[in-house]
Amino acid sequence: MEGRKLIVTIPLLLFFIAVFSVPPAAFGRKVAFPRKRMPKPCMNLVFYFHDIIYNGKNAANATSAIVGSPEWGNRTILAGQSHFGNMVVFDDPITLDNNLHSPPVGRAQGFYFYDRKDVFTAWLGFSFVFNNPDYRGTINFAGADPLMNKTRDISVIGGTGDFFMARGIATLMTDSFEGEVYFRLRTDIKLYECY
Amino acid sequence: MEGRKLIVTIPLLLFFIAVFSVPPAAFGRKVAFPRKRMPKPCMNLVFYFHDIIYNGKNAANATSAIVGSPEWGNRTILAGQSHFGNMVVFDDPITLDNNLHSPPVGRAQGFYFYDRKDVFTAWLGFSFVFNNPDYRGTINFAGADPLMNKTRDISVIGGTGDFFMARGIATLMTDSFEGEVYFRLRTDIKLYECY
Amino acid sequence: MEGRKLIVTIPLLLFFIAVFSVPPAAFGRKVAFPRKRMPKPCMNLVFYFHDIIYNGKNAANATSAIVGSPEWGNRTILAGQSHFGNMVVFDDPITLDNNLHSPPVGRAQGFYFYDRKDVFTAWLGFSFVFNNPDYRGTINFAGADPLMNKTRDISVIGGTGDFFMARGIATLMTDSFEGEVYFRLRTDIKLYECY
Repeated sequence: MEGRKLIVTIPLLLFFIAVFSVPPAAFGRKVAFPRKRMPKPCMNLVFYFHDIIYNGKNAANATSAIVGSPEWGNRTILAGQSHFGNMVVFDDPITLDNNLHSPPVGRAQGFYFYDRKDVFTAWLGFSFVFNNPDYRGTINFAGADPLMNKTRDISVIGGTGDFFMARGIATLMTDSFEGEVYFRLRTDIKLYECY
Repeated sequence: MEGRKLIVTIPLLLFFIAVFSVPPAAFGRKVAFPRKRMPKPCMNLVFYFHDIIYNGKNAANATSAIVGSPEWGNRTILAGQSHFGNMVVFDDPITLDNNLHSPPVGRAQGFYFYDRKDVFTAWLGFSFVFNNPDYRGTINFAGADPLMNKTRDISVIGGTGDFFMARGIATLMTDSFEGEVYFRLRTDIKLYECY
Repeated sequence: MEGRKLIVTIPLLLFFIAVFSVPPAAFGRKVAFPRKRMPKPCMNLVFYFHDIIYNGKNAANATSAIVGSPEWGNRTILAGQSHFGNMVVFDDPITLDNNLHSPPVGRAQGFYFYDRKDVFTAWLGFSFVFNNPDYRGTINFAGADPLMNKTRDISVIGGTGDFFMARGIATLMTDSFEGEVYFRLRTDIKLYECY
């Protein structure tokens, strides 16, 4: 009899698992998705990276350069209209604290461009590249960076090495900036898929 | 006895689940992957976005601008050879229907470039950015856009906020275009991984 | 009695599954992630692609072109300082072997840019686009390419068609190069998430 009860119980259990793991579909504009579960990250990491944009005078120190601009801009001074259309390639040092002169633990390599005319807003595609005893591998990122907001979330779209197949969210915060030449981003990485 | 039968049944069940969830490996050129299962989307969304390319005369209305071109091109007129090498940065309004003048529900922000000489073909990296009572968060996209095809599939590579950790497919359709200045894309988003 | 034993056994089983599926969280700089499991790929693919950069003289054969450069560069010759800041758009043939003249099975379409001043290093965003009886669909890639290394791992960030929702790792190897005009990359794709 107990066995029989179990036979009934297990399908029921599976049924409930099935029902509650399928999020409610949202069609068109109607959005009804109470967060089913807010998972815990499987990895938390905090880094800073430091961007020094080439401006025609700082070739020795610059870690990035303007490589594209709209017709009304050039490649030594960020354009008007909130730098709309300026594209920048960078190779920035990553540090564990907010000091530009701390020993770098890796490089942030990629590109960003400004994509709004009325307020400073960027879009980023880049990698954190690590090759030291503590970390070896890369974390790949992409997403929108409305940089006047205190925090901005972008996606961790993949990883290699120690960060094999990583997925997650990176929260960017502008930790400091000086004119239009230097800025420092704090990056809080939370991975929700680890292998 | 019933219980005993069950003890046998469960491992068998697990065994079958295991066997049928592992897709057959395909090596080299031999491809043998009968689609195991075509999952149902956990979220369906349909949006339109509208791109007005800066052409030297429409500064007030333009939502995008050419920021890169091959040596034989410039940044006010899309280049010959199917615009090969033209790179465009955009900040386009997103609407729920196909009317450019409908109230925008978000912004499509990112870049695309033309990457074929013999037929119009592009590659896109961008985000849908929402910040309203219905949706808050971003959806990030990347992929090839052979835009002469009626439909083209690109990848949803991540999401934040209401679209936390989203993955899926976006199907693009050119809904309308006017010369080389305006085009409208219908975007059918199907998410297959939701949290 | 057997049934009762089972009632005890199943929650225990679920408990162990739960415990061992949660990877250990790593906080801050402390990294402690013994690889829980190194999964087997669900798909292995090997391809070659061939890039011929436009240099002002090879318009007929070129498959790619410089579309962005730093202020100190131009769009017909790769810039000094390890080509830092040069951005290239490409539409390269994909072959099954290392012969440029083998029948192409698809196109590698996307962009790369050089992003280090002191050593040749690039960052790539691109798709493999297939449309033939063997493969139909796209695989999307992004990641850092420190191209002086023998092998470099980038991320498979998504896929469509036969590669629906793919995730994995692609290992790049420079198979050959001629001056600064031609290079050939071997790409070993291992997918760890297949549908």
